[in-house]
Formats: sequence, structure tokens, C-alpha cells
Amino acid sequence: MVFLHTGGEGGGMTTATLHPDVETTAEAIASMEVRGAATIAGAAADALQTQAEHSEVSTAAEFRNQLRAAARRLHETRPTAVSLPNCLRYVLDRMEGDSVEELRATTAAAAAEFSARLETAQDDLGAVGANRLRDGDTVMTHCHSTDVLSCIEAARDRGIELSAIVKETRPRKQGHITAKALRELDVPVTLVVDGAAGRYLKEVDHVLVGADSIAADGAVINKIGTRSLAVTARERDTPIVVAAQTVKLDPATLSGHTVEIEYRDESEVISERERDDIGEITVRNPAFDVTPPRYVDAIVTERGQFPPESIVTLMRELFGEQTATPWENE
Amino acid sequence: MVFLHTGGEGGGMTTATLHPDVETTAEAIASMEVRGAATIAGAAADALQTQAEHSEVSTAAEFRNQLRAAARRLHETRPTAVSLPNCLRYVLDRMEGDSVEELRATTAAAAAEFSARLETAQDDLGAVGANRLRDGDTVMTHCHSTDVLSCIEAARDRGIELSAIVKETRPRKQGHITAKALRELDVPVTLVVDGAAGRYLKEVDHVLVGADSIAADGAVINKIGTRSLAVTARERDTPIVVAAQTVKLDPATLSGHTVEIEYRDESEVISERERDDIGEITVRNPAFDVTPPRYVDAIVTERGQFPPESIVTLMRELFGEQTATPWENE
Amino acid sequence: MVFLHTGGEGGGMTTATLHPDVETTAEAIASMEVRGAATIAGAAADALQTQAEHSEVSTAAEFRNQLRAAARRLHETRPTAVSLPNCLRYVLDRMEGDSVEELRATTAAAAAEFSARLETAQDDLGAVGANRLRDGDTVMTHCHSTDVLSCIEAARDRGIELSAIVKETRPRKQGHITAKALRELDVPVTLVVDGAAGRYLKEVDHVLVGADSIAADGAVINKIGTRSLAVTARERDTPIVVAAQTVKLDPATLSGHTVEIEYRDESEVISERERDDIGEITVRNPAFDVTPPRYVDAIVTERGQFPPESIVTLMRELFGEQTATPWENE
Amino acid sequence: MVFLHTGGEGGGMTTATLHPDVETTAEAIASMEVRGAATIAGAAADALQTQAEHSEVSTAAEFRNQLRAAARRLHETRPTAVSLPNCLRYVLDRMEGDSVEELRATTAAAAAEFSARLETAQDDLGAVGANRLRDGDTVMTHCHSTDVLSCIEAARDRGIELSAIVKETRPRKQGHITAKALRELDVPVTLVVDGAAGRYLKEVDHVLVGADSIAADGAVINKIGTRSLAVTARERDTPIVVAAQTVKLDPATLSGHTVEIEYRDESEVISERERDDIGEITVRNPAFDVTPPRYVDAIVTERGQFPPESIVTLMRELFGEQTATPWENE
Amino acid sequence: MVFLHTGGEGGGMTTATLHPDVETTAEAIASMEVRGAATIAGAAADALQTQAEHSEVSTAAEFRNQLRAAARRLHETRPTAVSLPNCLRYVLDRMEGDSVEELRATTAAAAAEFSARLETAQDDLGAVGANRLRDGDTVMTHCHSTDVLSCIEAARDRGIELSAIVKETRPRKQGHITAKALRELDVPVTLVVDGAAGRYLKEVDHVLVGADSIAADGAVINKIGTRSLAVTARERDTPIVVAAQTVKLDPATLSGHTVEIEYRDESEVISERERDDIGEITVRNPAFDVTPPRYVDAIVTERGQFPPESIVTLMRELFGEQTATPWENE
Amino acid sequence: MVFLHTGGEGGGMTTATLHPDVETTAEAIASMEVRGAATIAGAAADALQTQAEHSEVSTAAEFRNQLRAAARRLHETRPTAVSLPNCLRYVLDRMEGDSVEELRATTAAAAAEFSARLETAQDDLGAVGANRLRDGDTVMTHCHSTDVLSCIEAARDRGIELSAIVKETRPRKQGHITAKALRELDVPVTLVVDGAAGRYLKEVDHVLVGADSIAADGAVINKIGTRSLAVTARERDTPIVVAAQTVKLDPATLSGHTVEIEYRDESEVISERERDDIGEITVRNPAFDVTPPRYVDAIVTERGQFPPESIVTLMRELFGEQTATPWENE
Repeated sequence: MVFLHTGGEGGGMTTATLHPDVETTAEAIASMEVRGAATIAGAAADALQTQAEHSEVSTAAEFRNQLRAAARRLHETRPTAVSLPNCLRYVLDRMEGDSVEELRATTAAAAAEFSARLETAQDDLGAVGANRLRDGDTVMTHCHSTDVLSCIEAARDRGIELSAIVKETRPRKQGHITAKALRELDVPVTLVVDGAAGRYLKEVDHVLVGADSIAADGAVINKIGTRSLAVTARERDTPIVVAAQTVKLDPATLSGHTVEIEYRDESEVISERERDDIGEITVRNPAFDVTPPRYVDAIVTERGQFPPESIVTLMRELFGEQTATPWENE
Repeated sequence: MVFLHTGGEGGGMTTATLHPDVETTAEAIASMEVRGAATIAGAAADALQTQAEHSEVSTAAEFRNQLRAAARRLHETRPTAVSLPNCLRYVLDRMEGDSVEELRATTAAAAAEFSARLETAQDDLGAVGANRLRDGDTVMTHCHSTDVLSCIEAARDRGIELSAIVKETRPRKQGHITAKALRELDVPVTLVVDGAAGRYLKEVDHVLVGADSIAADGAVINKIGTRSLAVTARERDTPIVVAAQTVKLDPATLSGHTVEIEYRDESEVISERERDDIGEITVRNPAFDVTPPRYVDAIVTERGQFPPESIVTLMRELFGEQTATPWENE
Repeated sequence: MVFLHTGGEGGGMTTATLHPDVETTAEAIASMEVRGAATIAGAAADALQTQAEHSEVSTAAEFRNQLRAAARRLHETRPTAVSLPNCLRYVLDRMEGDSVEELRATTAAAAAEFSARLETAQDDLGAVGANRLRDGDTVMTHCHSTDVLSCIEAARDRGIELSAIVKETRPRKQGHITAKALRELDVPVTLVVDGAAGRYLKEVDHVLVGADSIAADGAVINKIGTRSLAVTARERDTPIVVAAQTVKLDPATLSGHTVEIEYRDESEVISERERDDIGEITVRNPAFDVTPPRYVDAIVTERGQFPPESIVTLMRELFGEQTATPWENE
Repeated sequence: MVFLHTGGEGGGMTTATLHPDVETTAEAIASMEVRGAATIAGAAADALQTQAEHSEVSTAAEFRNQLRAAARRLHETRPTAVSLPNCLRYVLDRMEGDSVEELRATTAAAAAEFSARLETAQDDLGAVGANRLRDGDTVMTHCHSTDVLSCIEAARDRGIELSAIVKETRPRKQGHITAKALRELDVPVTLVVDGAAGRYLKEVDHVLVGADSIAADGAVINKIGTRSLAVTARERDTPIVVAAQTVKLDPATLSGHTVEIEYRDESEVISERERDDIGEITVRNPAFDVTPPRYVDAIVTERGQFPPESIVTLMRELFGEQTATPWENE
Repeated sequence: MVFLHTGGEGGGMTTATLHPDVETTAEAIASMEVRGAATIAGAAADALQTQAEHSEVSTAAEFRNQLRAAARRLHETRPTAVSLPNCLRYVLDRMEGDSVEELRATTAAAAAEFSARLETAQDDLGAVGANRLRDGDTVMTHCHSTDVLSCIEAARDRGIELSAIVKETRPRKQGHITAKALRELDVPVTLVVDGAAGRYLKEVDHVLVGADSIAADGAVINKIGTRSLAVTARERDTPIVVAAQTVKLDPATLSGHTVEIEYRDESEVISERERDDIGEITVRNPAFDVTPPRYVDAIVTERGQFPPESIVTLMRELFGEQTATPWENE
Repeated sequence: MVFLHTGGEGGGMTTATLHPDVETTAEAIASMEVRGAATIAGAAADALQTQAEHSEVSTAAEFRNQLRAAARRLHETRPTAVSLPNCLRYVLDRMEGDSVEELRATTAAAAAEFSARLETAQDDLGAVGANRLRDGDTVMTHCHSTDVLSCIEAARDRGIELSAIVKETRPRKQGHITAKALRELDVPVTLVVDGAAGRYLKEVDHVLVGADSIAADGAVINKIGTRSLAVTARERDTPIVVAAQTVKLDPATLSGHTVEIEYRDESEVISERERDDIGEITVRNPAFDVTPPRYVDAIVTERGQFPPESIVTLMRELFGEQTATPWENE
């Protein structure tokens, strides 16, 4: 365990050490032991709450510095994880007061509040998504999304009968995970390869996918293959719905920043033996693609449903316009 | 080896037996030992030629009956293989004469002619396709097509530098075969999963795919995933070209018949172990899909290039309008 | 006249009876004697105001219960009439106070305020819609909408010359009512059957239609045939404008609920005699269809104009996010 | 009965009178006693055959003049009926010989041949169209077309189960006739108003309509409302098939002529009473509209199926390029 | 210099004269000596500030009247300049107080605040726009826009390498000005005529244009040719981004007003000599066209980026809903 | 004048010199003194006729060699001029006979025939195009095309009233030539810059353009800016018609060859002074662009009108399939 010096910024201010839980959490996020947008955000909120509650500094300025340092430490672990800035902004924006005690109270309360909202977000989203589904509907899924499953589960809880066509979603075939989860909800499942999806769209009432993140211009960043699915679904006039908690909204895109697409290891696409057999080739394995809002009919969140072109309104409500990140202020 | 009685139809006419090569060929086609549209057509032409040359019947009527019986036997082996009726029609339509000798000569000559044309067709097609390619172009492929490779090989032979983006083409990953063949032509290859194709279309100058068969309404039946690729390519204004010898043109579609899509074994899609882990699901594995002509820019054949909406003209030139199959005439 | 017991919910609380006007209004709405979105909402506001002003209960809790019971009674008459929850929410959300007198005052005032706004809404909307119209423009209408007529009347009042192409709008031919109203505004009218609309779109400057209700995802629910008209208008690049007071915005859709399409009697479509002549057939008579926002250029309300993708912002401003219906609270 | 002088053209040539049957037929066509594209063409062929067989002229030149005069008389009855020039061209183009006897024989034979082909055309077309239909398919129809019914009847004869959604087709509601005919073929029928068609397209496998005439540029002229149906069907990717005998192909369009759209009486659209109630309005009642080839998937004829963009090839095969009308030659 | 009497409205109220700077500014705007949306707005803000600071009236009512008169005078100079009402509303809406001193202070402060925001707006916008650009991108421009240049300059300042394809933009060839400015930023420039833009879109990563004004329905009014460019860019799936400070948002469009398109002198299109050579013709020279939101991917402002369908939200935040112009109140 | 030795090819065959007119014609074509597709083709036909008529060789083989040499000489002058191979193929394909006299006669006759057809082609085309135009129509033109003018002239000769919107067509502003020619036909002309075309499409009944050449896949190669115009016209559902004599059909495209786009001098785009003022830039000046058939409604030729997807049928009728050029045979 490493104790970090957080001083230095703040001029002649005395330094202070972060609570060990912050570092533990940071390392767990960095190593992807803690993963998934909501799980990461929840862990970060807990770490900030612990830091606030156990801070031993004696001045308000030191407290603020310390909390910002904790946020920085957490943020740097996975700078592209969209849910981290969501959490950090929420808590730091509510850190208010003139004394350490006041600051401690407001910060801890904000962190607790964020965690509480996170806990119910997926169920609330599921309730909204289920409202779009009707008895007898067929849903097509891509990849694996717990937000999507939450919608289907909520519908099943109300006794709505659904069936599903599940795309396997190469390269990692997360469709298999989705298929299994749907079977546990007693939903009849038809599994198809990605290239076969188009052939089944005429039987589909809703294309229902999750999101890795959502941008202020309404673009949906999701597992590779989503855009082709959306384009093809629109060509057949099948509605495409994105289920995404607000923790997936990327505040940096409000000021024009674009989302960097991650490239994963080629071993997901081809085995070493297959590759050796082919000869010298390049393998490209982008994890995500970008679906423009014109191919999406609705984004379902725990705060209700939105046309993708209006999600910017919710983002501004949640994050304001400020482009600076509060953990870098002073 | 089985000697077949071909008599019966034709009333009191004496029966005659087919040459054993016809049966051998029929069995080889039925067992898929002989496979591939052009290979099947070539084998059928050879069998008809042998039958004509070695027929031992003594009347013109018997000769005609016997040749029709041979055609029927060959046709029934794989009634959906589009190249079989192509061959059988070509030869039987040219069976002319009043004596056995005349019939023997015209029939054997027609079969030989068909074989000769078949032999040069792929190279001729390649020369046409290569004319569309320019130095520095990038081609995207789907599945594995020797007609496509013929175009690229012809271009390479002229010193044209090309690069290729190869879709792996689930479930059978024939993209790997294509990648290997392209490497042998010294074409730089980038391999991607099917869902990632859209992300690379902006860099692509030609989507170049083969065909399983082509219908009179201009629809292209090809490996599952072709339609989505074509729809997405059109959305980005990337030309899509189909390379298909005329042996892929399905004469039955002239009279409105549609092409039956084959469903293959689910084991291509999912292993038994994966399936057991998921639970009770349906797996659908259509081998082909149907791309309407509005998503195809050109069909390249050994007889030149055509907009898909005009391929019917070439079909009528090759097959006429008669809807009856000549091997069923009397 | 029936006096309803509203107690029961609220535990041991003493029950109280609703004012007879509430029941009278409820029956008038149920029997469709009172019809039209704005008229229904106005009647409901009046009934709530009467109930509040004449309530004889003695505790604040009883008052609240009684008003909720009145709202429930009104709501159940036509649970799919979108303007009812608009009114009921507006009034009950503003029922505030600790004493019966305070509650009475705030509730009656809210009801009066709602009625006042309703009274000017159509004129305000008309003024906004008229701003889009220019001298010499031709408008195409579908069905009959007083909101649409308000736009045209406002334009005529300013001396703007317009002409109209009126679709008859089967099955009920409400186009005839529109034609008559337009003639009274001295607008030259050309009447066409629904199938002929496309032929005249090139001469049309604005397709101008009303709405039965509008959903949070921007979809416009309006008289059957609207969607086809919008699709065809978009194909010819003719702008389509929806005129709809905010009383048509459906708050339930904020949480994903979809609008149930009503099916009307088959006698609107076919006479008994015609039907007998044909034999056993099914007649389907959906009253409305759903036009997605991508086929609508603007929604004109009394609060200004909006792209359909942004109407959710106005809905959230008017109704907030709460998904529970206030008359079911406690 | 009126005997017409046909002389004058041809210089000093002696005049000759037409056979009374020609005039009878002409009057029957003009009065619409004889109606329907195929019926008109058949009657004209019969009249020409009678004229040829009973001509009493003595020189070849007189015979030719007389036949042209007969053709002119028939043509002028309904100059916009597309099947008339089809018939007249077919017969006059085959009028060959140096003597009256030769001319008589060739002309009468051509007329008989035309009639014979006409007789089987609808059945042949039906057989082609039925090949596109599969067991369990749902067909949507517009207006009333015996060519469409022939496809469905052929399918039913093969035991194919179909169901139909029938648009009523204002103003004349020919959908009722179609519904009745389909019931006689034991096809389950759902009747909807025209505006409701879009709502049912997702359940439809084929939009199947007839044609009034077809132009060389691939445009389909058919009952008003066809274009909107086709545009909406394309938006939902439902195939649209036009069933039309070659007698509907308009030879004048080969040289760029466009098809004049007929306007029918306003009493089809609105009753006098309804109109009086509304006030001064214009009623426009175009009988047909023009669907561009890009919204049509296939044209089914007795000569096989064609993409609409290729129907020009069949037209050139049938009519050649000559733009002059043979009855005006000399 | 002309001293204007502003009294009259306000009944028996004593009149007061405007400060000479208001008139000077008004004349400079009217003569187009002061031009450009931001420059006009800044000049108007300065004039209002001067008027407020130097007003010599003695009552609050007179002060209000006088400021409104100043606003009216400024507004009437170029009633279609979208930035004028932006400025005037901002300042007058913040004119508050019961005494002349209070009114003077609030009004002058509002004017100063407006000027300050204006000063940083273009840089802020540039920072947002630059966030969308990546190293190696190619940008296509139309006409000349300092907002567009600000995005590119900000990107260049961060060391991002860009290249540009510049449309010349007939009739005034402002593309030349853009080309020169880009060269000063060391951006490689390719100049093409307007008709050639489509040919280069495949190489373009962003179409980046400015705006003359933006309407509440999301429409972008910009230099003639923008719409064709956007339509063509969408057909090739090239993103189109509009860079526009909020001073370009037209508040009148919130209430449905449309933007009047200005027609400029024909001498911009054709020289007198060319025209004389041709003969009698009409020359039409519209300065702007209207691009609907469905062809625009994002609007970049100093307040962040927005899908065009959501810009109405920002407009309502800035301007509220009131449709009356505050300078016409009383 | 230069006498060319044509021998060498043909083995030991004695050489022969070309007629001086061949060289004169070749030089006139090369220097663009002779220009325009039809003019070039006519000059080439005349040169071949002269060569045939005045050949002084003594053997059939020498005659053939000499004519091929003449064709080669003519062809090499502008290898991309599409009308040259049209002419050369037509004549050489008809060079038949065993003696010099026979060869001379057939060749000279073929050349004369080609010239005769060429002479009437434009008028015939005009008659076809005029059939599409109706009284009161408005036509939009791009660049300058005598084929387009021929359609309008034919319509005017029939008394049809037309008006025209003429795009100036940068860089060379050939719209001015078109405007002048239309004024001579008494057609009212409105001139607009290229970017303004979209704004007027709603008033336009036909976009009517010429072609530089037409490819077998239906693509139309025409003056830069045609594609954008066609895309925009389609978006507004305005028909786009291409007027092109068959001499514009490019036989090489039947075998997949693509049309090389010519780049012209940058001085057409920008003056030296303008360029010096801007600094170092690249100017790209492509003369033509490629419009895919899906944006063209009809191609009007002297042989009738065709959907662009069917022009390949006419090309095969005119040129057959042979890909070798007859002047390179032997």
C-alpha cells in the first residue's frame, strides 16, 4: 500500500496523505478487477466518502486539496472510463462549507447520495424500458448489456411475454451471455451470427442495445457492429432503442471532445494457429463504433426516455457547461 | 454401379440404359464430392458428352429420350444448384438432327462447347473486373469467391497495386481462405470481424463480392451478411460490385421462381459445449441472404459488366423465355 | 345523479362524497358528449374547481383525499384521453396548504389558472403557426384540427393569402369539415381523396396537421393516414408541421409508456350492405397512426415552435419526471 | 350503322368502305361498352380480322389503305387506351404480300395470332406471379386488377395458403370488388381505408398491384394512390410487385411520349349534397398516378418477370423503335 | 448628426433626446460600415451603454422610454440582422430598478457584460470546435466564416495538423479569403469550384461551415450553396458541422417567424458586358439558403456543441419565450 | 502535310501511305480545332471514307492494313474522346470483301452511312426529348449541351412554351452560352450561380443535362457539378433527364473499363493575380464527374429513351461484346 503526498499544489500549504482505501480502489479500477461503468462509479463514490469521513486535516483548504487529490488519483486510473468523471463531478460539485466539518458532511452526503441513486438507476431504467414493450413482442439484442436485461426483466415481472433474437457479437460472443441471461428470464431465444441479423429484422419489434457511452451530439458509442445493425434496422423501419443509465453520458463531449475508440488485442479475432496459416496480415479489432442519432429512435435512462438529439439537455442539467474538471481546479 | 431404365415415358418405346459415367457423376454431385457452381456444371457437361458419344440406341427418338433421362438424373442430384440447369439447357437446346448420328454429333459438340466456355469464363470475368480497379485502390471482400479473386489476380498481373480489407465471414470464417489467397497475390490484407466492416468503408474503393446465384429481378443471392454489407456500403456511397460467372444466373427466376435459402447445421454457429452452457435455445443458420439490385452497382461477368437491373437481358439471351425444363419435354 | 363514496384509502379516515358536478362531468366525458382534447381538459378543470370550492370536509387530509378521488373519477372516464392527465396533474400538483381553507384556495386557483391558459392557448398557437406562413402559400391538410385552423385564421387576419388542398380523410371524411371552415376564412379549397395527396405535394408549401397526442420520443399520434402523408411529403421535401397545444403532450410517455391506438367501429369503413355483398371479411379501423419525429419538421404549440426531437424538453418543463400519477398518491 | 369512306389518302385511288363490324366495334369501345385493356385489344383484333377476311377491294394498295383506315377508326375511339396501339401495330406490321389474297391471309392470321396470345396471357402471367408467392404469405392489394387476381388464383390452385389486406381504394372503392373476388378464392381478407395501409405493411410480404400502363422509362401508371403505397412500402422494405400483361406496355413512350393522366368526374369524390354543404370548392379527381421504377421491385408479365428498369428491353422486342404509327403510313 | 425626439409614446411624458453616439452607431450599421454579426452586436451594446451612462432624464419612466427608443433606433437600421435583437434583448431584459440611478447601473452593467461575453465567444467556440478535430483530418469549407477559422486556429495552436479543401463560393468567391487565412495558419489548401465539392467529399473528415443565423426549428441559414453541400455530404456520410456563436441564434424564430432570404445585386453574378451579350435574362442572386437540421450533425457554439434539433433549448435559455420585442413594450 | 508509312505490321507486306486527309483530320482533332463528340466522329468518318475511296493499294490485305492504320492514327489523337471508337468500330466492322474493290465499296458505304445517321441523330434525339416536355414546364440546365438544346428547340417548334433556369456552370460559365441559345429560341431564362440551383428545384419540372460519355453500368459522365445537381434534384423528387446521342456511349465500358476524368488547367478556376494574393495553394480542376444511374430518371437518345440501367442493352446492340478494338486486329 502506498501513501501519496497530495501537497505541492496550493503553494506553501502542508501536505496530507490519502486514505488507503482510495489507493486500493484506484488500483482495483486500474487492474480492471473493478469493471463496468456503474461498478466503477460506485467504487469511486465509496472511496471519496471514506476519504471525507476519515480525513485528518485541520483546515478547509487542506480538506479541499485532499479531496481533489483523491479524485485525481481515481480519475487517472482509467481516463477514458466515462462513469468516473460522472461520479467525481457529482461529489466535488457538492463539496461546500467553510469548515472541515461542514466540508466533510456535505462531501460524504453527496457521495452517499450518488451511491444511492446509482443503486436504483438500473431498476428505474428497466421500468422505463419495459413501458415500451408489449405482450408478444420480439426483441433483437447485440452484445451484452445489463441495462437491456433490466428492461426485459421488468417486462417479464409484469407478465409480458417476449421473445428474443440474439446476435452472437463477434469477436467475444457476448451474445452467449445475453442468451443465457434471457433464458433465466424464461425468454425464448434464437441465436444468429452477426451477418444474419438483417434477415430477421422483419420479425423484430425492437432492436434493444446498451451503450458504452453517449455523446452530447447524440451519438451512441457501443460495441462494434451496433452501427451496421442500426442502419439496417432503419432501412426496415424497425425501432432501435438504446438503454443507458445516465452514468454513461460523457460530460467531456459537451465541449466537443470526441470519444476515443479502443482497439483490443487481435487474439480476440483470430487464433495464433489460424494466423500462422494465413501469413502476414494486419488484424484490426476496434471495440466500439459510433452510431449517429439519426439511426436511434430513443435512449432509455433512469430519468426517462429521450430522442438522442435531446440527450444534451439532460447532460447540461446534470453537468452544467463548465469544461474544466473540478479536480483540477484551485 | 446402377444401370437405370429410362424408358416408360415415350409409350411403347424401347428402353435404354444410361452410360455408367452419368451415374458416377450424379453420385459425385449428390455427395458434394463434386462441388462449386462451375465444377458441377463442367462435370455435367462431360457426362452428357460421354452419354452422347457412347449411346448405343438405334433411333433418334430413343437418343433424345436417353439424353433427357441423363439430364434428369443429373438434375435431381442437387435441384437447387443453379449451375446444373444452366448446363443441361445449353446442351439439350442444341441437340438437333433426324438421325442418331446427327443427334450424337450436335449434342457432343454442344457439351464440348459449354465446357470450353466454362474453362475461360473465370479468366474472362477477371479481366473485366480488373478493368474497374485502379492503382492504389482498397477492396473489401466478404466470404470466399474465386470470381472475386480472379478480378484481383488479373489486376495484380497488370501490376496494379491493391490492398484488401477482409471480413472474416461468420460462421465458417471463409474470410481466412480469402486472406490467404490474397497474400499469395501479394496483396496487403487487413482482417476484421463482420461487425467492424462499416468502420472501414470510408477507406474502401470497392466492395467486391461473389454470388451464389443471381435472379431475373436483379437480386443477388450470396453468403449471409452480404445484404447488410451492401446496405451499409450504399449509406457511405462505396460502390458494391458482384463478380459472378453467367453460370450463376438462375434461369428459373425468369418465370418468377424465387431462390430457396438453405439453412445449415447449427454446429457451424455454436459448439455443443457453448450451447449446453446456455440452455434451451434455437439456433438459426441461413447460408445466404438476398441483396436487392438497388444496393448493387454492377455485376461483373465473363460477358461484360451489367447494372443488376439489366442482367435479365443477358439471361433471356442465354436461356430464352421457355419455362419448361427441356429434360422434361417429350 | 350518483354520490360516490371516496373513502377507504386513507385508513380510518371518514369518507366524503364528491360534488355532483364531478360526476356529471365524468359522465359527459365518458359518453363523449364532451369531446376534443381542450374541451375535456377544460371541463375537468371546472369540475375540480367546483369540488374544491364546495368541499364540505373538515380536515386537510380529507380534502386531499377528496380531490384525488375526484381526479380519479374524471381520469377513469377516458383513460387514453391525453389532455385529462395534463389537467389533473396541473391542478393537484398545486394543491398546497395545511388547512382546508388553504387547500381550497390553492386548488381552486390552480384550476382557474389552467382554464385561463387553455382559453388563450389556441390563439397563441395560431399566432406562432401563422408566422411560418407567407403570402401565396398553399397548405395541405389532413383530417380536421382546430389548432391547424387557428394558424390559418391568424394568417388570414393578417391579410395573408393562402390556398388549401384538403384530403378528405377516410373513413369519416373530416376533410369536409375542414374544407367548410376554410371556406369561411375565404381560403380557396381543392378537395382530393387521400390517395391523391402525393400528386399535389409539389404545389404544396406546408403540410399542416394536428395531433391527437405527442410522445416524449417526438412521435406524433394523429389521425390514420398522417404517417403516409409525412413519408410522402418528406420524399418531395415538403415541410410537415404539426400544430398541437401543449394539452396534447402525453406526460406518461416521459417514462416510456406508449400510446394505445384506438380501433373504431367497422361501420365507419363499410356499410352493412356493402359488407354483406362481399362476404366474410375482417375490417380493421385504427383511428390513429404514429409518425416518427424524423418525418416532422416542426411542432407548433402555444409556447412556440419546436423540432419534434426537442418537445421532450418542454414536457419535462411542464410535467417534471415523476412517473406516479398524483391522484394515486398517498 | 355508318359506312365510312376511307379513300382520299392514296391520291386517285378508288375508295372503299369499311366492314360494318369495324364501326360497331369502334362505337362499343368509344361508349365504354367494351372496356378493360385486354377486352379492347381483343375486340380490335377481331374487327381487323373480319375486315381482312371480308374485304371486297381488288388491289393490294386498296387493301392496305382499307386496313389502315380500319385501324385509324378503331384508334381514334380512345386514343389514350394503351392496348389499342399494341393490337393495331401487331396486326398491321404483319400485313404482307403483293396480292389481295396474300395480304388477306397474313393480316387475318396476325389478328388471330394476337387474339390467341391474348387469351392465354393472363393465365401465363398468373403462373409467373404465383411463383413469387409462398405458403403463408400476406399480400396487400390496391384497386382491382384481374392480373393480380390471376397470380393469386394460380397460387391458390397450387394449394398455397395466402391472406390479403385490401385497400378500399377511394374514390370508387374497387377494393370491395377485389375483396369479393379474393373471398371466392377462399383467401382471408382484411379491408382497410387507404390511409391505414402503412400501419399494416410490416405484416405484408408483397404489395401486389396492377397497372393501367407502363412506360419505357420504367414508370408504372396505375390507380391513384399507388405511388404513395409504393413509397411507404419501400420505406418498410416490403417488396412491391406490379402484375401487368404486355398489352399494358405503351409503345409511344419508347420515343419519350408521356402518359396523359385522366381526370374523372368529381361526383366520384363527393356527393352533390356534401358539396353544397361545404360551399365553393374545387374537386380534383385524377384517375391515376405515376410510380417511378425505383419504388417497384418487379413487373410480372406473361413473358416472365422484369425489373422495371428493363421493361424497355421487352418493349423494344415487341414494338421495335419506329415512332410512326403504322396506320398513318403511306 | 441628428438628435431624435423619442417622446410621444408614454402619453404626456416629457420627451428626451438620444445620445449622439446612438445615432452615429445606427448610421454606421445602416451603411454597412459596421458589419458582421458580432461587430454589429458589439457596437449596439456600446451605444446602449453610452446612452445609459450619459442619460440626462430625471425619472425612471423617462429612462426606460429613452433606452427603448435607442434600441428601436438601432434595430430599425438592419431589421434582418440577427445579432441586433440578441444584443438589445439581453440589455433591456436586465434594465431593472426604481430610480434613474439603479436603471443606469443595471443597464450599463448588462451592456458591458454582453460586450465581455462577445469578446471571448469566438475563442471559446474555437476551443469547442477544435475538440472535434484530430491530427491528419481534412476539412472542407464553404464561404468565409471567422467562427470556422477560430476552430481551425485553436486546433493548429494545439499542434494538430489539418488540411483543407476550400470551395470558392460563387458569386463573391469568399473561398479565396478563407484560403488565404488558412495559409496563414499553415494549413495546406486545395481550392475547387463549387460544383467539384462532391468529388472530394470522400477525402473529407468534416464539412465545417459557419452560419448567418440559426432558427428554433434547427434550420441553418448560411451562404447560398450550403444546403447542396450538406445534402451531398450526408449522401457520402461525411459529418457536417456548423460553427456559430450564440449571437447567430435568431430569437424571433422561437415564435415561428421565418428568416427572410436577402437577394443581392445581379452584378455579383454577371458582368454588364456578359449580360449584354446574352440578351434579356433574369438573374437571381439569393445570398443564403436554408439547411434543415436533418443534414447537420452538430452546431458548435461558445456554450458547447448541440445537435441542431436541440438548439431550441439553448435559445429558450437565452431568450425565454416572450415573443414581443422589449423595445416595443410599455 | 506528312505522309505516314503504315507498313511494318502485316509482316513482309509492302507498305502503303495514308491519304493526306487522314492526317489533316487527325491533326485538327488533336489540336481541338475539330471538337465536340459528334463533330469529331463525323470528321473521322469522312477521313475513312476518303481513305477508302482513294486508296491505291493493290491487295485486299494491304487495304485492310491501310484502313486499320488510318483508324489508329485517328484514334491516337484523343484516345479519351468517346465518339472516336464509336465511329471507327462502326466502319471497320463493316469492311467486308475479298477484293480491294469490294472492300473499298463496303468501307466507303459504311462511312457514308455512319455520317448520314450522325446528321439526323441530334434532330431525332430532340424529337424524343421534346415528347417529355409539356406546355408551361420549367427546365433547369447545367453547362452547355447541343443535345439538350435540340430537345428544347423541338418543343418550341411544336409551340410548347417553356422557361429555363440556367446554372452558370463554373469554372467556364458555359451556362452563358446556353442562356444565349435559349433566348434565341425565345425561352425566358433565369440565370443562377451553381450553389443556388437547389433553391429553385421546387419550381423545376425537369433537370435536363447532356453527357460527355455514358458507361455500361449506367453511370453518366458529364460536366463537373452534374452529380451534386442530380443528388439534390432527387432529394426534391425533380426528374433528371440526360440527353445524349448514342455517339456518347462508351463501348470500352462494356468490358469494365472506367472513364478517366480529365483535369483542366487551374487558370480556369483562378487568375494568376488572385492566386498570388492567396499564397501557395493547390487548385484542382476536374472537368467531369460521374453520376450513378440511381440519380437519373431517363437517358434520351436518337434511338428512344432508356432508364440508365438499361442503356447497356443498347450498347450491346450497337457494339456487341468484343473487347478488342478492330484497328488493332490482325
